[in-house]
Amino acid sequence: MELNIALLPGDGIGPEVVGQAVKVVDAVAGKFGHKVNWTFGLTGAAAIDAVGDPYPESTHAICMAADAVLFGAIGHPRYDNDPKAPVRPEQGLLKMRKQLGLFANVRPTFTFPSLIDNSPLKRERIEGTDLIILRELTGGIYFGERGRKDGGDTAFDTCTYTRDEVKRLAKLGFEMAMGRRKKLCCVDKANVLESSRLWRETVQDMEKDFPEVEVSYEFVDAVAMRLVQWPSAYDVLITENLFGDILTDEASVISGSMGLMPSASIGVHTSLFEPIHGSYPQAAGKDIANPLATVLSAAMLFEDAFGLKEEAALIRAVVNKSLAEGIVTEDLAGKGKAYKTSEVGDWLASQVS
Amino acid sequence: MELNIALLPGDGIGPEVVGQAVKVVDAVAGKFGHKVNWTFGLTGAAAIDAVGDPYPESTHAICMAADAVLFGAIGHPRYDNDPKAPVRPEQGLLKMRKQLGLFANVRPTFTFPSLIDNSPLKRERIEGTDLIILRELTGGIYFGERGRKDGGDTAFDTCTYTRDEVKRLAKLGFEMAMGRRKKLCCVDKANVLESSRLWRETVQDMEKDFPEVEVSYEFVDAVAMRLVQWPSAYDVLITENLFGDILTDEASVISGSMGLMPSASIGVHTSLFEPIHGSYPQAAGKDIANPLATVLSAAMLFEDAFGLKEEAALIRAVVNKSLAEGIVTEDLAGKGKAYKTSEVGDWLASQVS
Ligand SMILES: CC(C)[C@H](C(=O)O)[C@@H](O)C(=O)O
Ligand SMILES: CC(C)[C@H](C(=O)O)[C@@H](O)C(=O)O
Repeated sequence: MELNIALLPGDGIGPEVVGQAVKVVDAVAGKFGHKVNWTFGLTGAAAIDAVGDPYPESTHAICMAADAVLFGAIGHPRYDNDPKAPVRPEQGLLKMRKQLGLFANVRPTFTFPSLIDNSPLKRERIEGTDLIILRELTGGIYFGERGRKDGGDTAFDTCTYTRDEVKRLAKLGFEMAMGRRKKLCCVDKANVLESSRLWRETVQDMEKDFPEVEVSYEFVDAVAMRLVQWPSAYDVLITENLFGDILTDEASVISGSMGLMPSASIGVHTSLFEPIHGSYPQAAGKDIANPLATVLSAAMLFEDAFGLKEEAALIRAVVNKSLAEGIVTEDLAGKGKAYKTSEVGDWLASQVS
Repeated sequence: MELNIALLPGDGIGPEVVGQAVKVVDAVAGKFGHKVNWTFGLTGAAAIDAVGDPYPESTHAICMAADAVLFGAIGHPRYDNDPKAPVRPEQGLLKMRKQLGLFANVRPTFTFPSLIDNSPLKRERIEGTDLIILRELTGGIYFGERGRKDGGDTAFDTCTYTRDEVKRLAKLGFEMAMGRRKKLCCVDKANVLESSRLWRETVQDMEKDFPEVEVSYEFVDAVAMRLVQWPSAYDVLITENLFGDILTDEASVISGSMGLMPSASIGVHTSLFEPIHGSYPQAAGKDIANPLATVLSAAMLFEDAFGLKEEAALIRAVVNKSLAEGIVTEDLAGKGKAYKTSEVGDWLASQVS
């Protein structure tokens, strides 16, 4: 099979971790007889520096032509705490999501038995946790009208959703639940927000099409509590953009394996795969960042973008092996030897063959 | 001193827990020579049943005439999962907040050493946690324009803030920080929302008036993570209404003492004090609900509404004593004797004298 993959390393540790995933993908492709065509694109602060735009037209063209996008991270401390900076790396992220129609961000949270004690939560609270948050990614208050009035003294943002946007996301949620434990939780704030009431009534209307799925409706504030209390109670959660932003980050710390969590963004034109850990600028260029989340994102890429399950399973197996044998970066090394980012990548690639 | 207190027991376990706080307040007042005038008002589902309005005009008049309001909880399962019910108990809550101008919800999160092991978080993560979330309560997306378009297929909600609303809340935050560890965290989503940018620039402008306070600006998604990772790092957090709704609930489970957490809502016309645990309908009428959060809310009432610190300290001392001696309801009894709600209230009142 020919795999056309756009490669967007982005900022901070992005290039280093993406580099390791490339090694692993190439090795897996070699083993299974696939041909990978990588096309590099600029994004984020790196793209602002080069061409003054965090998601340039040329990068967009590369993504549109690709079957899948492997993405590192964007964001740079130079732009932090400066909400008024005229061009910000995050704008690139939002533009990319919108232009590629990446409507669903898929964030699995699961535990690695060997890492469970890294969690701030007690072991008995998180054992068995295996949930997916499906966050709507191209609508809501992220993309509604916003601005100032009264000479700048009043600011407003608008959260808008259409029934079709909700349906598209919810359909994916129902389908995912069918392939898993058949439980779907719709997270909203229907006791206050009109957009949440639209979410809830739309999902309620869809229940009849998925009679096997057990659906619950929970308020976002309650879910923010329950995720910490009993994360293992959840299977698939669907929610709107801003609630998803908050809850996926909250969920990422409960497993104790945040540095390992991959994600996928399912789109109209293509799909994008990225680690959730961000650009982590303090570690950039030091060859110490943990590449496993990006490698696991590449596993999702094989499975979700190309339906190549065996390839994905092999990647997950070598990642588990690296954890079991302690071929890991300093964040996971404990008292054992800390390997470099590039060493972990080389080792994983060598294990694939 | 004459204390005019409006008493709104509300729904579920509200009447039972408020009943115990009344016993304690009366006992404390007796000891210190104050005269308490209680005036009862209907709210919530109880008020819908009686007069068709969850916050009737008569109740509003009672609150306006009072120096402080002691509130139980509102909410009834009959109205759950029915976002289209024409009158809902929560509407009473929102109407009450708006009409009384309760602009700041004060939610402390602290640990009780004897309860720390109830937390889903590990002891070493939460020891020393003592933070306050100050949530803006009468603005933002809760009170902006909302509605439907396209024959009901598009829904929208508007989040609006004015500079003065932000200033009023932030000023309280700076002042609270000055009386504590002098750390203030402004929680926003300034990388996306215009209203957040107004929050951030307003707080930045106020920094010079409180040079001793160390101010940080953090995104709401990052705070949702850090609250679980290192809650003890925070002192005072200020945030807008919806973020505050989510984060205060999340924070409430970290201490392991959720059933004991009080709250205050500071207003233009009066202030309101309530336990955070809600109406807990499953336990209603059984004389088993834990009254300590309401009793601790009454302590906040003495201190914040009347400046009566000694009285507040005495209430906190008898609550600590009940925990130490195991005079507690079933949720805290463990293998020990479980006392009834009313027995705990009687015991606390008896200890005051
Ligand atoms: C950087 C920011 C705009 C972005 C978001 O809020 O979506 C980030 O937090 C994320 O979750 O990918
Ligand atoms: C019941 C609901 C409207 C309310 C809110 O969202 O403010 C509640 O969650 C709270 O925090 O008091």
